[in-house]
Amino acid sequence: MITRDDCQLMDEGDALAPLRASFLLQPDEIYLDGNSLGPLSVEAKQRVETTLNEEWAKGLVRSWNAAGWMDQPLSVGARLATLIGAGASDVVCADTLTFMLAKLIGGALELRPDRHVLITDAANFHSDVYIAEAIAARAGRPVEVRAIDRSTLADHLSDDVALVMLTHVDFRTGEQLDLFSITAAVHAAGALMLWDFAHSTGAVPLDVVGADVDFAAGCGYKYLNGGPGAPAYGYIAPRWQNVITNPLPGWLGHARPFDFTLDYVPALGMRSFVTSSPSILALSALDGALDVFARTSMDQLRSKSLALTDLFITLVEERLEGQFEVVTPRDHARRGSQVSLRHGESYGIIQALIARGVTGDFRDPDIARFGFAPLYLRFVDVYDAVDHLVEVMANAEYRHESFTHRNPVT
Amino acid sequence: MITRDDCQLMDEGDALAPLRASFLLQPDEIYLDGNSLGPLSVEAKQRVETTLNEEWAKGLVRSWNAAGWMDQPLSVGARLATLIGAGASDVVCADTLTFMLAKLIGGALELRPDRHVLITDAANFHSDVYIAEAIAARAGRPVEVRAIDRSTLADHLSDDVALVMLTHVDFRTGEQLDLFSITAAVHAAGALMLWDFAHSTGAVPLDVVGADVDFAAGCGYKYLNGGPGAPAYGYIAPRWQNVITNPLPGWLGHARPFDFTLDYVPALGMRSFVTSSPSILALSALDGALDVFARTSMDQLRSKSLALTDLFITLVEERLEGQFEVVTPRDHARRGSQVSLRHGESYGIIQALIARGVTGDFRDPDIARFGFAPLYLRFVDVYDAVDHLVEVMANAEYRHESFTHRNPVT
Repeated sequence: MITRDDCQLMDEGDALAPLRASFLLQPDEIYLDGNSLGPLSVEAKQRVETTLNEEWAKGLVRSWNAAGWMDQPLSVGARLATLIGAGASDVVCADTLTFMLAKLIGGALELRPDRHVLITDAANFHSDVYIAEAIAARAGRPVEVRAIDRSTLADHLSDDVALVMLTHVDFRTGEQLDLFSITAAVHAAGALMLWDFAHSTGAVPLDVVGADVDFAAGCGYKYLNGGPGAPAYGYIAPRWQNVITNPLPGWLGHARPFDFTLDYVPALGMRSFVTSSPSILALSALDGALDVFARTSMDQLRSKSLALTDLFITLVEERLEGQFEVVTPRDHARRGSQVSLRHGESYGIIQALIARGVTGDFRDPDIARFGFAPLYLRFVDVYDAVDHLVEVMANAEYRHESFTHRNPVT
Repeated sequence: MITRDDCQLMDEGDALAPLRASFLLQPDEIYLDGNSLGPLSVEAKQRVETTLNEEWAKGLVRSWNAAGWMDQPLSVGARLATLIGAGASDVVCADTLTFMLAKLIGGALELRPDRHVLITDAANFHSDVYIAEAIAARAGRPVEVRAIDRSTLADHLSDDVALVMLTHVDFRTGEQLDLFSITAAVHAAGALMLWDFAHSTGAVPLDVVGADVDFAAGCGYKYLNGGPGAPAYGYIAPRWQNVITNPLPGWLGHARPFDFTLDYVPALGMRSFVTSSPSILALSALDGALDVFARTSMDQLRSKSLALTDLFITLVEERLEGQFEVVTPRDHARRGSQVSLRHGESYGIIQALIARGVTGDFRDPDIARFGFAPLYLRFVDVYDAVDHLVEVMANAEYRHESFTHRNPVT
């Protein structure tokens, strides 16, 4: 049996342990929901304060140039690019993830005008499917959105498929899909590949160049710790830049925005996928949050992430034998940075844990979901979380009436 | 001749003068560009700090419910509604202005399926025209976007016009259009009316209910002082809510977002026009900025705004006779809250003024634009600005080589 002392030894040997000091977590907080909203870092806080007190308060409108606001979607994108294996000029940071997907889907469909199917995963995050259907309905030709069981993807890859859009790590189960083989299979069918990296970025190593990905988008507020509603990002392979058209254009994507001409002339490269003024406070928070990533590497983070999720799974198996189904794959290659447990009382279990200071989240209908962010979690946090879970189950705390009223968190 | 002492007397008699203390302006700053980016207020700063240090740092993901983040697009919208004469539940606050316009244009075109023309103003802000063309191109039927000379609007109001989209205060000239008569004329032709209030909100009284406006959108970062890239807002007349469809839907506009169903079922009312997680830092800044408006009224603000622009025009006429064309209408009913001066050397003039601590902006090809925000400007600021302008012109400072390289601000 693994003991708390064992976990303390793991923390003592953890090269990433000093990074925790960057995060403004309450001392008694065990936060296993960084895959929903990452915590505030000192760096993000300071960067926002600089934007407020210096760039905005003193620089005022002049900061669009003097403080680099005009280029911030690209400069933050360049820092983020290193986390997904992209070239520095191939990522833009702006908008919400849904809008970024809208732009990439709309643009991608025009690149395969003779094809009429957009394939996605029936288990995909629902917002991705909504926007795919909305954009497909306005594609100017009939486009069928087919939400499939992803294990049957090969059967669907006919020569009528224009685009495949999959989420790389399943938000419910934590399963990680194979970036390389799926992208290759999609390309072999002559289709384009759009990856949603919402649950991957900052948690698992990504290599968009190596995998020859066409398009990708991701989220700034999960493992990147960019703050609630942080900007999303979009990646477009260099071969498609200046070929793909932004279907939701705006003046900040214009080649000469201050000419105020009624003809839209797209800027070169990723800038044409900026639509209009993004929130600079939001971009600055994300910019600051990325400072912490600059002090480690995705390989280091991945090693610790796997050690954390391994530990959690082992402890659940040792101490809660037979009470939960571990939904997340044991196979490292197929695991993201979360562990999902299945239990009919998951809603109440999560509420009871939150009341004890252990925050995970519930995903309908029966998933208790725990995210393990290697930047700030300790091995003892994992031990203590399972300790609380053992008590919640032993006392059937999840049946307490205060935990049965559904008041969902994102 | 009006003297600086006269202006000081006006400030002494100004009931709004105490509001200036809320704004973190440098003592020597004469800021006539609040129509591009409003300044930081103590209230906005404190609200952002609360979001950072309490809601995000301590509340973490729980703040989506506990701190009301989930409802913030509607709660900030409700506060903003009072500034445009709308019902509290009829405004939503999210996205950039271009995306909000995209949603309203796309939804509105579907409400007039047998009509094929979208009319806008050739003098409109270019981004509005770009997005109108992009959405029209994806309307599922041929829709012509006709950018007209707005003085000829009556000639264009045929029974084939689906939607008219105009900006209420012209961003170049500062001319204010007549909300009531234009909306009525558009309705008489069976078309729908979408107003862009980017240069109106927080500066001139608006009455969307009285004028029977169908749709409106506006900008949070100009006179509302919500910060760089602050969220936009959208208004939909109650008669169109639950009739109009959001063409860019997302999970936060779903009736039951946490059911995670693949079928999009729109929430009732304005919530269906929320797409996905908006930046909460950005919404909080705007929320705080609105506190200052709660201490006055749009009528009070309008009176002072007109007094400020009257003073500026008079001083320019008295002290710079014949050197500038005053482009902005003298007629109060046709004036927004800015004054635009035409001069062939406007670019260099603005740069020379900025070097002297007077910030206005340049609009291609020959407009020097000055915004007069009644919340924080003093009458002596107007006097001093003209004083500097007199010196810039007398010394031909605009010809200095450091002011001729174009480095535009938004």
